[in-house]
Amino acid sequence: MFEGVPAATAASVAASLQERKSSHPFDQALALQPLGAHAPDAFAGSSSAAYWNMVGPFGGTTAAIAVQALMQHPARLGEPLSLTVNYAAAVGPGDFQITARPVRTNRSTQHWSIELTQPDATGAASVFMTATAVTAVRRSTWGSQDTPIPAVACPQECAVQTRPGAPAWLDRYELRPVRGPLPQLLDGRGDDSLSQLWLRDAPPRPLDFPALTAMADAFYPRVWLRRALRVPAGTVSMTVYFHADTSELSRSGSGYLLGQASAQTFYKGFFDQSAQLWSEAGALLATTQQIVYYKE
Amino acid sequence: MFEGVPAATAASVAASLQERKSSHPFDQALALQPLGAHAPDAFAGSSSAAYWNMVGPFGGTTAAIAVQALMQHPARLGEPLSLTVNYAAAVGPGDFQITARPVRTNRSTQHWSIELTQPDATGAASVFMTATAVTAVRRSTWGSQDTPIPAVACPQECAVQTRPGAPAWLDRYELRPVRGPLPQLLDGRGDDSLSQLWLRDAPPRPLDFPALTAMADAFYPRVWLRRALRVPAGTVSMTVYFHADTSELSRSGSGYLLGQASAQTFYKGFFDQSAQLWSEAGALLATTQQIVYYKE
Repeated sequence: MFEGVPAATAASVAASLQERKSSHPFDQALALQPLGAHAPDAFAGSSSAAYWNMVGPFGGTTAAIAVQALMQHPARLGEPLSLTVNYAAAVGPGDFQITARPVRTNRSTQHWSIELTQPDATGAASVFMTATAVTAVRRSTWGSQDTPIPAVACPQECAVQTRPGAPAWLDRYELRPVRGPLPQLLDGRGDDSLSQLWLRDAPPRPLDFPALTAMADAFYPRVWLRRALRVPAGTVSMTVYFHADTSELSRSGSGYLLGQASAQTFYKGFFDQSAQLWSEAGALLATTQQIVYYKE
Repeated sequence: MFEGVPAATAASVAASLQERKSSHPFDQALALQPLGAHAPDAFAGSSSAAYWNMVGPFGGTTAAIAVQALMQHPARLGEPLSLTVNYAAAVGPGDFQITARPVRTNRSTQHWSIELTQPDATGAASVFMTATAVTAVRRSTWGSQDTPIPAVACPQECAVQTRPGAPAWLDRYELRPVRGPLPQLLDGRGDDSLSQLWLRDAPPRPLDFPALTAMADAFYPRVWLRRALRVPAGTVSMTVYFHADTSELSRSGSGYLLGQASAQTFYKGFFDQSAQLWSEAGALLATTQQIVYYKE
């Protein structure tokens, strides 16, 4: 970003940006403190009220915290390639501990095991989230983006979604539905599960791996659209594949992403969601899947 | 399967089936011995020569072994719902140890952390595969399979693929390509990455969760089709979502599944693969994703 700028100036610009950036609610939600040399894989954090969902923090932030732990780990090799996050229980308010352990480091890939714990009623550490991730050093190769961005209206032509009384985390995103908004008429007569929307952080914030991770979880439950009914639902496991490096992400700046999500099947209490996230310029930055619990 | 058969007869049929089943190469590849009460989560196994791939056993069997460890674990709750397997290094010949640890058990879901280790040159345990899984007790709910089986020719009308000199594991499957067979003309002029094929174990074997898991990895690398070039490629991480319970799987018996796979993007050394597996009767049994390394 600072190519061609003298080093001293670049450093002062970076520091100033960092200062502004650190006051963003997303950066506050992701603030992690290393626990020190005796526990090099462990970090302490605190649940964010600003991203509160129904019974715990927005799962996107929990996933982003797993990525943030990697990003801060001094032994990290390369950049995020894949992440699977399993939501074992609703994270509570207050402090948590996250460990990100590099279990195998190869020449160009590194494998991570991650756990988020909080004390249970007895004070013992209880697991609330497990994750695995792979980071990788990318090399220039032949490439082809075979899934172009859908032809849709530009963000400015799509009205911002407002949901008075919605959970706090929804106020942390500017969501501009293109197709498949949250149904208002709950008559049980839905017929598909495809949503498209423009989204970005509110207030805007330069895109990075944690932010992209969180946005992979920004879609409301597909079963609400498919059935036009709001039944209880919650993500059990989410996988994100990153198809971008830092320089590609920086090209998005704080612009909009186009998200698209749909389900393939709803079977005995669980449905899947497949989704894509493109930059406004049309680069497919991430593809993601989740398996989601639903009731009734 | 034994509905309406007197209990004694059913038991003897089951025993006889079990005997035949245990002589199947897939069951031999998945044979795990519990390490005993002092290590309740640990099992010993041995790499299968019958499923050997280029530089290690077929990744599908490695993923199936993770599922097999869950299935054998005495504390298991419910049936497999999701699995993510990370291939940290090519598993070698000989013995391995797999641990499947239930890290959190809720009322109807259970979260698992899994690792496969082999001794390294110094004799220390080295991680070759990490995985997480969720098992769940399913309940009857509203449901809808929104992704019907594609209209294709029946298995008997599709010729069996033969690949003389191919790795051993390919002989363990009966593969009947419908569309997108392995390109014979390697001229660099491929233009899409969509394959459809009928497949089943060879010899046929009743479908179960481990077998379905292995079949999720039975597609050759999408980059070979997309480019019509055989560049080095290998799966880094695979996620499988199961949309079936044991009674649904048993309806498939030892019949064919239809598999469909395609890639969304190829970016700087890694591409994704999205795939589906349907029973011959058209039930969507599993959806799966992987991120795959490729060179050049």
